Amino acid sequence: MLDYQAPLRDMQFILEELAGLERIGELPGCEDASPDLVSAVLEEAGKFAAGVLAPLNPVGDQQGCRLEGERVVTPEGWQAAYDQFREAGWIGLALPPEHGGLGLPKQVSTPVWEMWFSANMAFAMLPQLNVGQTEALTIAASEAQKATWLDKIVSGEWAATMNLTEPQAGSDLAATRMRAEPEGDDAYRLFGQKIFISYGEHELTPNIVHLVLAQLPDAPPGVKGLSLFLVPKYLLDERGEPGQRNEIRCIAIEHKMGIHGSPTCTLSYGDDGGALGYLVGEPHQGLATMFVMMNEARFNVGIQGLALGERAYQAALAYAHERVQGRDIVSGEVGQPIIVHPDVKRMLVSMRARLMAMRGLLYSAAGWFDLARHHPEAEVADKYRRYVDLLMPVAKGWCTEVGNDLCDEAIQVFGGMGFVEETGVAQLFRDARVITIYEGTTGIQANDLLGRKILREDAATLRELIADIRETADRLESDAKLGDLAQPLHDQATLLDESADWLLAHKADTAVLYAGAVPLLHMLGIACGAWQMARLALAAEARRTTDDGDPDYLTGLSELARFYMATQAPQARAHGHTLRHAGAVLSRFSAREL
Amino acid sequence: MLDYQAPLRDMQFILEELAGLERIGELPGCEDASPDLVSAVLEEAGKFAAGVLAPLNPVGDQQGCRLEGERVVTPEGWQAAYDQFREAGWIGLALPPEHGGLGLPKQVSTPVWEMWFSANMAFAMLPQLNVGQTEALTIAASEAQKATWLDKIVSGEWAATMNLTEPQAGSDLAATRMRAEPEGDDAYRLFGQKIFISYGEHELTPNIVHLVLAQLPDAPPGVKGLSLFLVPKYLLDERGEPGQRNEIRCIAIEHKMGIHGSPTCTLSYGDDGGALGYLVGEPHQGLATMFVMMNEARFNVGIQGLALGERAYQAALAYAHERVQGRDIVSGEVGQPIIVHPDVKRMLVSMRARLMAMRGLLYSAAGWFDLARHHPEAEVADKYRRYVDLLMPVAKGWCTEVGNDLCDEAIQVFGGMGFVEETGVAQLFRDARVITIYEGTTGIQANDLLGRKILREDAATLRELIADIRETADRLESDAKLGDLAQPLHDQATLLDESADWLLAHKADTAVLYAGAVPLLHMLGIACGAWQMARLALAAEARRTTDDGDPDYLTGLSELARFYMATQAPQARAHGHTLRHAGAVLSRFSAREL
Repeated sequence: MLDYQAPLRDMQFILEELAGLERIGELPGCEDASPDLVSAVLEEAGKFAAGVLAPLNPVGDQQGCRLEGERVVTPEGWQAAYDQFREAGWIGLALPPEHGGLGLPKQVSTPVWEMWFSANMAFAMLPQLNVGQTEALTIAASEAQKATWLDKIVSGEWAATMNLTEPQAGSDLAATRMRAEPEGDDAYRLFGQKIFISYGEHELTPNIVHLVLAQLPDAPPGVKGLSLFLVPKYLLDERGEPGQRNEIRCIAIEHKMGIHGSPTCTLSYGDDGGALGYLVGEPHQGLATMFVMMNEARFNVGIQGLALGERAYQAALAYAHERVQGRDIVSGEVGQPIIVHPDVKRMLVSMRARLMAMRGLLYSAAGWFDLARHHPEAEVADKYRRYVDLLMPVAKGWCTEVGNDLCDEAIQVFGGMGFVEETGVAQLFRDARVITIYEGTTGIQANDLLGRKILREDAATLRELIADIRETADRLESDAKLGDLAQPLHDQATLLDESADWLLAHKADTAVLYAGAVPLLHMLGIACGAWQMARLALAAEARRTTDDGDPDYLTGLSELARFYMATQAPQARAHGHTLRHAGAVLSRFSAREL
Repeated sequence: MLDYQAPLRDMQFILEELAGLERIGELPGCEDASPDLVSAVLEEAGKFAAGVLAPLNPVGDQQGCRLEGERVVTPEGWQAAYDQFREAGWIGLALPPEHGGLGLPKQVSTPVWEMWFSANMAFAMLPQLNVGQTEALTIAASEAQKATWLDKIVSGEWAATMNLTEPQAGSDLAATRMRAEPEGDDAYRLFGQKIFISYGEHELTPNIVHLVLAQLPDAPPGVKGLSLFLVPKYLLDERGEPGQRNEIRCIAIEHKMGIHGSPTCTLSYGDDGGALGYLVGEPHQGLATMFVMMNEARFNVGIQGLALGERAYQAALAYAHERVQGRDIVSGEVGQPIIVHPDVKRMLVSMRARLMAMRGLLYSAAGWFDLARHHPEAEVADKYRRYVDLLMPVAKGWCTEVGNDLCDEAIQVFGGMGFVEETGVAQLFRDARVITIYEGTTGIQANDLLGRKILREDAATLRELIADIRETADRLESDAKLGDLAQPLHDQATLLDESADWLLAHKADTAVLYAGAVPLLHMLGIACGAWQMARLALAAEARRTTDDGDPDYLTGLSELARFYMATQAPQARAHGHTLRHAGAVLSRFSAREL
């Protein structure tokens, strides 16, 4: 079995030095997030992740879930772990105090979610849905609905789900067929089928609150005709407690390559008269609300990329220290652990460099969320809202792609022992394969980045971001020890600028542009990673001269930034080349004739 | 279930135009390989692969193998398929006629093995071992041994295995502990344990012939003390038929992420007095002979990369034509198959481009084998022997890495349906994960490439290869339609030249050099792919002007070459940058302190 230890030192360093923990703690409403409290929270979460959730991860994989009639049975230990998790109050960590949450900033909950996903992603998908649903209901539900449902969702007494996909409506929600018929007041009868519903059915909680996209009878066609409904598994009785069973049946669960512990359900609504649901927000405005939950989920899936990568790295590192094989190519000594082999060391350092780059980006983005939400100056808040919007598809798309690569590389470090299931690293690799798919594939993220986030505003926010990157490169230039990093970072900024120019110049040529969407996403992800690694090096050097921090650790961070520049940054350039040159060739292929 | 159709047109085009089928057919001993015969062989093999082996692939995955006592039970249908396979004479296709084979050139058997691996890799691993063992025994066994064993191995009446790995001896065979004690004549008693033995035990054949590395009592330490033994599951009686059971017990089979249909066995030799075996070749010279079998296996694992990629491509292409989702971003039409989306088209064309590049390299390499073996002029034979030696680690290392990428990309085309097991593409992805590991990981291949194949001869053969690439680039330059491909190919040649210069200049700095071994392997693989794609375009244009071939097909090949240059070639440059810049940084990290 794989151990897991929360990487507290790395987490804390990045929170403090890159993500601006101090600045966040000064925002109105975020004052509780003192460094001491944050440390205590991370430490406690680390213990829970390592001690309770991580040991259950292989159990979930091996046992999986099963459907008995219409009951879904989750793996042994899931119930006890969920009860502990809920009782400890982890779900409400960054949720509204008015509904029982602790109201801490997103920046603090982000490393905590990283831990849950590292320890046991299939399990952590369950409470994560409560967080997303809370965000959605907070924005769109009526006061009466909030009073009825939100406290129980924030506490985790009841579970939550997100119902979008149907057999014919995957990436394209315009094809949604689920329908809702008015039943008086805000009540509706729902009819239809939803697929791929994570934790769509289980008995871990006494009720499950489904948020469901459906069409009203007078709905205009397409995504502008989708309304959002809250549909509980059990209708509430007069005391507000789960009473009569609603007409929602789990008719199948998927047999998947990974995340076996998380039941992926096909739910049939209203087979005999209609499932009773309640309209959330305005008619036909459901998609925007669902996107609040979806964006929350996308960010969390980005964290899953980091989290699985971290777990895979820890596993590979431990194995490389332990496994003795071969002769040290430099010293000639035999009986050495494989970590002395340059190629094994290369893989491990490369993994760690990308982990820190992702962590820098994700924790910074969490801080931007907080700034956007809490900063008193509208202009500042707006800047970070735009940064979040621009980089959300990168956080999701790039970090999940890299997370997959890291799990793949961990198997390579294990060699033959990585391909057998007993070491556990194969599970990480299989689990990870879903993260570039669910909540919008990498292609969907890339289209969002290109179309809605860059072209629609003529790359304005992207140019702001590039200016920030250049500012970091300028600081490197004048740094006594890090001057060698300046040119590589400037090169990344130039690459982004040239790419933006090219995109705007080819704005009319849709087919050519969109053929480059995924290379664009990779390029921007790598460049943002380079920016974060440069900031990491600057922070490490600054601390080294002013602080009594561990000098080896700090030097290691600067070297990690150099390694990232030598290995990842040139790949951004390759993606940029592809962006500019592949689309024209591709557009000459006829899809039909392929 | 996934269909499979052998890509006969592509195979034939590459055999004829890139791999020099005509030239091979003129070699002494290869005269049987007429174009007509080759067509007939490929067609028949295609039918067998599609009709018999492909439908069994998911059966093998779902049922797997099980150990009952010391018996290994293979999946349903395995026995019947093997009997048909053997009776059709497929095993001996390119094996010596003096032992019952057909003696066709390797170039002809290579596409045939591609088909077997595409259709059912877990199954095809079994007969592939007979081919490798035949190569080894042909070189090293005594005439008496050949007479006793080879006919049955060539026909497939008996199965074969390759026994190298032990728990403490994986990549490092110097740590082998299996021992062999003389018993009189050429007989020995073997004692020890071997792990990861593919098809180490099963009942598909009345006997199994194990080739086993072990140490004699007077063995010098390390790999120079390994001897090779032939150890049958059943000792032969006086009529040469399997008689008494030898002392070899299967004590475990691995629970693996993929290739479930192929039993991976732990074999215990000589628990009660010693397993009887026969020395093959000279004492202490076993490794060289085993490397004949190993090299054969490595080349075949390279073919597996191509083969799994091809199967994954076919699956993704079919799904992309069939799955309706979203709006055509150019025409605005709804109800279109997903192949119209630029990013889906990009993935599919990218897959096809890399398939053709790999196929060009592997089929050409097979031709080089044949030239090395059969060409009457020693100088020509020697050149191609050196090409084979240089590029064997690339054929294995690069094609398996790309094969994994293609299976990964196919899942991405399937989206959520790729992550559920029922579509079959998940199996390809899981099966593929072993190919960068077994028969030497990518890191081992890269070290071989760098150390034994490049540095040891001061890059002499690499420079010859670069000259060949430049010669192709020159031809592009003077081609009326393909001039735009010349510069990208020259760039690849220049990159290789500069990289070779850099390697030789840093010859003394082992740690720095070897940190770049894997990037070097990727770079050379991509550059060789670019060379093959350029040759493909030249051949397609030549045929278009002289022939009545399908012009759309031929134009498509030239465009495929352009797409490869736009998407893959820049990655070679990125790897080259990493090669030159990452090692120095890496060497400043202390392995112990990671």
